[in-house]
Amino acid sequence: MVKKKIVVVGGGFGGVSAVDALSANPEFEIHLVDRRNFHLFQPLLYQIAMAGLSPSDIAIPLRTLFRKKRNVHITLAEVDQLDIANNKIHYDKNWVEFDYLVLCCGAKHAYFGNEKWEEFAPGLKNLEQAIEIRRRILMAFELAEKETDPIIRSKELTFVVVGGGPTGVELAGAIAEMAKHTLANDYHNADLAKIKVMLVEAGPCILAAFPQSLSLTAQKNLKELGVEVIINTRASDLSKDGLQIGDQYVPAKTIIWAAGVLPSSLTMQIPGEKDRLGRALVLPDLSLPEFKNVFVIGDQAACKSKSGEFLPGIAPVAMQQGAFLKDVIVSDMLGRARPTFEYVDKGIMATIGRSKAVVSTKGFNFSGLPAWLAWVFIHLIYLMKFKNRLFVFLQWAWSYFTFGRGARLITHKTWRFYDGEKIKLE
Amino acid sequence: MVKKKIVVVGGGFGGVSAVDALSANPEFEIHLVDRRNFHLFQPLLYQIAMAGLSPSDIAIPLRTLFRKKRNVHITLAEVDQLDIANNKIHYDKNWVEFDYLVLCCGAKHAYFGNEKWEEFAPGLKNLEQAIEIRRRILMAFELAEKETDPIIRSKELTFVVVGGGPTGVELAGAIAEMAKHTLANDYHNADLAKIKVMLVEAGPCILAAFPQSLSLTAQKNLKELGVEVIINTRASDLSKDGLQIGDQYVPAKTIIWAAGVLPSSLTMQIPGEKDRLGRALVLPDLSLPEFKNVFVIGDQAACKSKSGEFLPGIAPVAMQQGAFLKDVIVSDMLGRARPTFEYVDKGIMATIGRSKAVVSTKGFNFSGLPAWLAWVFIHLIYLMKFKNRLFVFLQWAWSYFTFGRGARLITHKTWRFYDGEKIKLE
Repeated sequence: MVKKKIVVVGGGFGGVSAVDALSANPEFEIHLVDRRNFHLFQPLLYQIAMAGLSPSDIAIPLRTLFRKKRNVHITLAEVDQLDIANNKIHYDKNWVEFDYLVLCCGAKHAYFGNEKWEEFAPGLKNLEQAIEIRRRILMAFELAEKETDPIIRSKELTFVVVGGGPTGVELAGAIAEMAKHTLANDYHNADLAKIKVMLVEAGPCILAAFPQSLSLTAQKNLKELGVEVIINTRASDLSKDGLQIGDQYVPAKTIIWAAGVLPSSLTMQIPGEKDRLGRALVLPDLSLPEFKNVFVIGDQAACKSKSGEFLPGIAPVAMQQGAFLKDVIVSDMLGRARPTFEYVDKGIMATIGRSKAVVSTKGFNFSGLPAWLAWVFIHLIYLMKFKNRLFVFLQWAWSYFTFGRGARLITHKTWRFYDGEKIKLE
Repeated sequence: MVKKKIVVVGGGFGGVSAVDALSANPEFEIHLVDRRNFHLFQPLLYQIAMAGLSPSDIAIPLRTLFRKKRNVHITLAEVDQLDIANNKIHYDKNWVEFDYLVLCCGAKHAYFGNEKWEEFAPGLKNLEQAIEIRRRILMAFELAEKETDPIIRSKELTFVVVGGGPTGVELAGAIAEMAKHTLANDYHNADLAKIKVMLVEAGPCILAAFPQSLSLTAQKNLKELGVEVIINTRASDLSKDGLQIGDQYVPAKTIIWAAGVLPSSLTMQIPGEKDRLGRALVLPDLSLPEFKNVFVIGDQAACKSKSGEFLPGIAPVAMQQGAFLKDVIVSDMLGRARPTFEYVDKGIMATIGRSKAVVSTKGFNFSGLPAWLAWVFIHLIYLMKFKNRLFVFLQWAWSYFTFGRGARLITHKTWRFYDGEKIKLE
């Protein structure tokens, strides 16, 4: 039996679900190529930045995930070139051939031509960024605790999150809470109560993907947490000391970028049409119009729903797409017509700090504690699939009830970072 | 009532136990100054390097530790100058006065004039180093898995630990086990069985601080794990490709330095005599001969035992010294004569991978599983003092019984590191 060689690029939600589904078929020889050695549960990445969880709680080595799958081969490498016309991709200085190619390299943060802003306002897409954001937030408190000049101190206690999507909302809410409950006990300096958290959204509302009622609820919840929500306003002129928000200049030591993403750079090498976000347009079977054996899924793909809009770049879409590919390739092998991908929309959710969230599912909208519990439950279910992930929940539940922040460690840079120096730790 | 201002420099075992004891007395105003914001449980640091535990499992924020102590003030800062004659120390660009000073800045790795070796053979003293060692070990496996040239592959699968003290023994044993049990399942490349782990000790035996019988037992246990133990031999000429061990050259990608420590650089600014390790000689009350209000404890201090030898640089010594200081300062306030520090030697222990260890206590020596259980128990007791540390044990027990390595993440550098390049992660 000649095995079909399927190369999957990217171990995110799309890639893992594709490999998981495809590996069930012994006629497939699957090669999963990723630049990192782990699958990251991105929806909880903000918990790392908030010191609520540790990296190993939400990242699982790809080899561990597919340990039992004999027909899955994992390579830690970065794909740098595509030669789709000739069924080849390039990594580790070699050209590798494939029968089928699945591209699911995800997205990165977009600074829309202001890439230098990244230094002042890191995004939240990978573990290193999450740890850097954690470091900056905790460092801001340490510096404020020592600072005698009230003007500098208020700058150190001002946190601005740019972008009112789910990540921005989660971050802003979590920072406000972290300040109120957790850190207030740890710092004797009363002014810490004077912490300022701002959420800046260029559009007319936060959580634009949600029904207006939920978007307003989220905004109300954030206000209750002490977050200043600013809509219809663009952030500009970011520097290490602050940023311009509309026509007001805000001095701020800590700025976090949660505004807009772009598909992985590799997408530019995909032949064919792109949508305005730069995602590759795919057919209803998720293949490229010109290349039936090349599929693009997840944040990299511009895939239309039945009703004709593009599907959003969220985990459920990528996971369903990944699982769907098995049916397509099996149909090919059986000489049948390919099925059409239909996204089953189970809804969307976003959490706003402890015990508050918004959920919109099948026209049914709810918020508050029930929504938060639904949010916890769904994330827990996913994590439970990873051996040993139970501890995540225990740890997490514990820090929820104790207001603890077990992972509140300042690592990987020295406290002098803001002076521009970097001391070598002994 | 005029409070006594006591400045404690360093939040290690000595500092934490000193602050803990002193803070019970409301007449003391305690200032704990540390460059890091957390207390690190160093004896388990090798578990981070081995991906068995996560940083937050063994590091606890100092502010959390002393949250309830109103007379404890914590400052995240690096002390850069001492002016002991004038009762002042310098940090954050300010001179700070003290009534009493406690120096417990610990030790750093010593490369004995070959500091450039650190790049090729990191030590294991802080979290960043542990994560870097973890990264190098896991990366070596990933590269070996991809490597086609058997000579390069064997270089990538050769791990050399320099220094046969407890840390070196723990690391060598753990690497050998990690390779055998954990990683063998994850890599299809059979040659991974050909992994080579070497432990190089310049002296006549490993674990020199232990009775000879235990030292030999440890050596036997290591051999059973597949570790090549080389004694009476010096490592030299370290490079990124290997090192000279006696008169044989060993090509090795991963070298770890566990040979010898030096007291923190600040020790050089302490007036008075030093021992041959560069530690400050202290009186039986742990104060400096010339300055009764300045104490040096832990790895920074050369403190004689009753029998006249210098006490070793281990946690129990530092902890007992820290607690002892309270009695000294209280005696001063009561105008009484100062007590003399007497170290209560509860023994020493070292673990050699899973279920094997050596313990020497009050002339009673034992090894194997009982010793390992004693080792686990004692470390657990200590960790349990930290709120939420129970999870450490659960997680740890879990990964013990499942041979899991939950924290097996390659982070904070890209996989191309060994090519000398550094790609920015998206």
